[in-house]
Amino acid sequence: MLRIEEKLTLIRKDMAERSLAAYFVPRADEYLGEYVPVQNERLEWVSGFTGSAGAVIILKDSAAIFVDGRYTIQVRQQVSAESFEYHHLIENPPIEWLAEQLSAGETVGIDSRTFTYSAFQSHQARLTKNDIDMVEVDENLIDLNWQDRPVPEHQLVMMLEESYTGEHSQVKRERIGQKIAQVNADVALISQLDSIAWLLNIRGADVPRLPVLLGFAILEKNGDLCLFTDPRKIPNELTNHVGSGVSIKDESFLEEALNQLGSEKTKVLADPMTANAWCQLRAAASGCELVPGVDPVLIPKAQKNSVELGGIRNCHERDGSAVSSYLAWIDKEVSEHRFYDEAQLSDKLESFRRQLSDIHDLSFDTISAAGANAALCHYNHMNGKPAMLEENSLYLVDSGGQYSDGTTDITRTVAIGSVSDEQRQMFTLVLKGHIALANAVFPKGTKGVQLDILARQFLWREGLDYDHGTGHGVGAFLSVHEGPQRIGKAGADQVIVPGMVISNEPGYYKEGEYGIRCENLVITVERDDGMLAFETITFVPFDARLLELSLMSEHELVWLNRYHTEVRDKISPLVEGDDREWLINATQQIVA
Amino acid sequence: MLRIEEKLTLIRKDMAERSLAAYFVPRADEYLGEYVPVQNERLEWVSGFTGSAGAVIILKDSAAIFVDGRYTIQVRQQVSAESFEYHHLIENPPIEWLAEQLSAGETVGIDSRTFTYSAFQSHQARLTKNDIDMVEVDENLIDLNWQDRPVPEHQLVMMLEESYTGEHSQVKRERIGQKIAQVNADVALISQLDSIAWLLNIRGADVPRLPVLLGFAILEKNGDLCLFTDPRKIPNELTNHVGSGVSIKDESFLEEALNQLGSEKTKVLADPMTANAWCQLRAAASGCELVPGVDPVLIPKAQKNSVELGGIRNCHERDGSAVSSYLAWIDKEVSEHRFYDEAQLSDKLESFRRQLSDIHDLSFDTISAAGANAALCHYNHMNGKPAMLEENSLYLVDSGGQYSDGTTDITRTVAIGSVSDEQRQMFTLVLKGHIALANAVFPKGTKGVQLDILARQFLWREGLDYDHGTGHGVGAFLSVHEGPQRIGKAGADQVIVPGMVISNEPGYYKEGEYGIRCENLVITVERDDGMLAFETITFVPFDARLLELSLMSEHELVWLNRYHTEVRDKISPLVEGDDREWLINATQQIVA
Repeated sequence: MLRIEEKLTLIRKDMAERSLAAYFVPRADEYLGEYVPVQNERLEWVSGFTGSAGAVIILKDSAAIFVDGRYTIQVRQQVSAESFEYHHLIENPPIEWLAEQLSAGETVGIDSRTFTYSAFQSHQARLTKNDIDMVEVDENLIDLNWQDRPVPEHQLVMMLEESYTGEHSQVKRERIGQKIAQVNADVALISQLDSIAWLLNIRGADVPRLPVLLGFAILEKNGDLCLFTDPRKIPNELTNHVGSGVSIKDESFLEEALNQLGSEKTKVLADPMTANAWCQLRAAASGCELVPGVDPVLIPKAQKNSVELGGIRNCHERDGSAVSSYLAWIDKEVSEHRFYDEAQLSDKLESFRRQLSDIHDLSFDTISAAGANAALCHYNHMNGKPAMLEENSLYLVDSGGQYSDGTTDITRTVAIGSVSDEQRQMFTLVLKGHIALANAVFPKGTKGVQLDILARQFLWREGLDYDHGTGHGVGAFLSVHEGPQRIGKAGADQVIVPGMVISNEPGYYKEGEYGIRCENLVITVERDDGMLAFETITFVPFDARLLELSLMSEHELVWLNRYHTEVRDKISPLVEGDDREWLINATQQIVA
Repeated sequence: MLRIEEKLTLIRKDMAERSLAAYFVPRADEYLGEYVPVQNERLEWVSGFTGSAGAVIILKDSAAIFVDGRYTIQVRQQVSAESFEYHHLIENPPIEWLAEQLSAGETVGIDSRTFTYSAFQSHQARLTKNDIDMVEVDENLIDLNWQDRPVPEHQLVMMLEESYTGEHSQVKRERIGQKIAQVNADVALISQLDSIAWLLNIRGADVPRLPVLLGFAILEKNGDLCLFTDPRKIPNELTNHVGSGVSIKDESFLEEALNQLGSEKTKVLADPMTANAWCQLRAAASGCELVPGVDPVLIPKAQKNSVELGGIRNCHERDGSAVSSYLAWIDKEVSEHRFYDEAQLSDKLESFRRQLSDIHDLSFDTISAAGANAALCHYNHMNGKPAMLEENSLYLVDSGGQYSDGTTDITRTVAIGSVSDEQRQMFTLVLKGHIALANAVFPKGTKGVQLDILARQFLWREGLDYDHGTGHGVGAFLSVHEGPQRIGKAGADQVIVPGMVISNEPGYYKEGEYGIRCENLVITVERDDGMLAFETITFVPFDARLLELSLMSEHELVWLNRYHTEVRDKISPLVEGDDREWLINATQQIVA
């Protein structure tokens, strides 16, 4: 295996051959999703950095790595200061740094597959200001030099039956086809992996935590679809499963297909914010007319149908039983003074989930955070040495599962021994916000940005806040972070519509001390009077030992007691023995 | 005086001479403000329509008038169906109607002074689609034919001392000049009348309800300003008052000045959304580079300084004494079975305000609405026959004053005799929303759209809502509707900052039955911990007879009792005898 410095030397040799003064490696791969399959972890290969966001820029004689505030410590542990300068990804954006480093007339190489078209254009515009050229490389320079690159397995995709999806692929494709025609396009480039999986009612195993198949699709306005992927992953029965009008081609034929569309002057709907630049550049160059617009699958996918919602409710009950058993186990171990580290705890929780029917994977890497680690809201115990749980502290666990019938995401904060008055006060303020959002009633047309204050108002009154969104969309056995729905201070301009599944997760984080988050998922439902409301679908007790009852209103206590009654009714039939006893106790009615 | 049909004939003759197939008359004049001085009421002259929004399009053989939902009845009373078709201003926009009526190759005439540049451009683009030309007329065709056009008085402007404004004109002009330089412009076209008045610390009497001087200003980045107006309105002392660098020219020299700027290739900051198209077209044609951007005075004007805030608090106490005396008078009259019509009531309220020191005008036409009329949220009793107050109903009064030290705007809903349980329930839901917004605490960076739900949440829970914004900005002895701050579902993306004065006015309207609104003004203040909050500055009791106490939380009752105590403390020294007795009674502590 090559050392990092040897890898950089190889890349620099390729740069020199191409007269490049810089080569820009983002963490993203050609599919531009949140998760990157191991064979596409190019940033890690070239730098050693394993974080989930970052970028590297290689110059002739130096290199720099850019990471955000979550990774400032980790990057120094994983990446050698001899080979790389460290910079802040947000405060010192790579493109600005690059513009300063190079001289007019020099050239930057990029793999246009690893940038959105929108990023490509803005980077190019920025560099042009300084008379710097940005060119596409013929082949990714990492791939050229990556000798021991992992060879992905080619596991067959699973075909998800209509009893799970509620709508046949052909109906979906024709429905989305009409939306393509409505924006005066002939075809749409579908590049988001979960959009492809949803359209074809298939699930794959190509990406960790996200049950999708790698590839691209071109959907015509008549509903016909051509899927560009590794055909070895496609079972023969797929044709029957998806209905007529679907063809499969090897992913290497995508360029040819784009050229063909160009020769026919096709109008191609493509999303510059999510689809890679390479596809759009090829399409435009071959003669296509690009119609910029959001992925037409986005909203239909977010509006779950009644079959999907039924499955989502079901898997949340099973998931709730696993999390409840886990919390019962923690309480027992702590009461008997047996303490574990964050990784052991996370593994234990996974073992409970793995016993459930229809489980495929976790929906994201479990956040199992003891004490002060929970103050980092995206903490991952795998990025360092897992900490031990300690007596008289808070433990935060944010986790979820991928089931055939749905995706879950839940956070509970647990009292380990005794907790301080301040911690109980903060937990209660967070829970009050959670309850206010769970109880929200609002008219059609309301956006997530309008609802956000409900969850924050009690913290704000005390001069406090949390530095993350209040809610993100969740897919149906798909991405645990699904757009476009969102509840937050910013970026939440999507109107909330019935069928959307959203998280409700206010928190509070005190640096160096503790972290609190209360997260359930909700379904947006329409009431008889036409107003919208949220149906909470996560069923696990909140830790009543963390409540400061004097801060709770009568209405809030009524909500919590009703919720706990529902938890008991739904989950107690699914657990046994000590676990059931724990559940009965944890859902006892609370009296002010 | 000409009849409408005769006026249309004259206009059509002028249209024919200019080969125009249509002439488009909006309600706006060249200053594009909310209020139009009587000599510029061109829409009324040509149609007879006196509403505050609308448009007329005159074709060769027909004409159409466009009004919104507020005026569908009034337009039929004021405008003859023989001369005009009636259309809905929003549902059937004039420009769409026009595009359908004309044939390709025909020409529409407009006075570009009466459209924003942004509207001009979008109208032109729409008509171009249908191959229809839009041309500027040399002179407004209404003005050409308006023989008995009122001649405005030329009252001297008043110079507002620094004890009211808190900042000298020269300091303001230099401060804004720096903002002009920051956007790489040389000068700014200041076209909003309240911006000009604020910059020069002057107030005028040219427009009803808005204490401004008609004119335009060109502000240089060094702070120098040229005011184009009727010089007869400018007192000799103005030079001393405004400091150095201010010159006055007759408004007719504006075109020459724009041409001069063009010859120097000046970069002119102008707001396409608020400044008229004519100015920007002339500037561009003469060689200026237009820099589109919001009026640089907007935000500084909205952030009141401590002197302005002191004045605003003071005038609200005086104003509160007048409104309290008025409400005391109503209660007495009703108890003695004397009932008046809406106009008499409105006049009585005005008579109380006119006794106050430093009063100049009302800040808008009083909404004095008895019974079902209050369900029209912009009701004006002058648009028809004023209704009589009736026993056992609700009376809504929305009113305000213009004082040397500030502008007020308050709405109270009053029980006339006994009211129904439903009315009390609705009043209480509205008041709960008012209290929630009054109590809001939020971090810097929060926008009005995020706060809106606080005021609506209790109505939403019952499936109800109100069809207007929750809060608008208010000026300091300037416009009672001042941007850019706003609290609402939409159009409220301006961040709320300390010093902004905003209304808090949720309501509920039941068509054909009654209307409820609870409105106070608030000042945005910064707390010691850096969070923002609202200080309520309107001091008049809410009608406790309208409360349904079972719906109110303990916190809400505490707020209301504290508020009433404050009202009593501040207002009782300002009223006497029966009025004081009424006030003491109306602010009694309420016990659940």
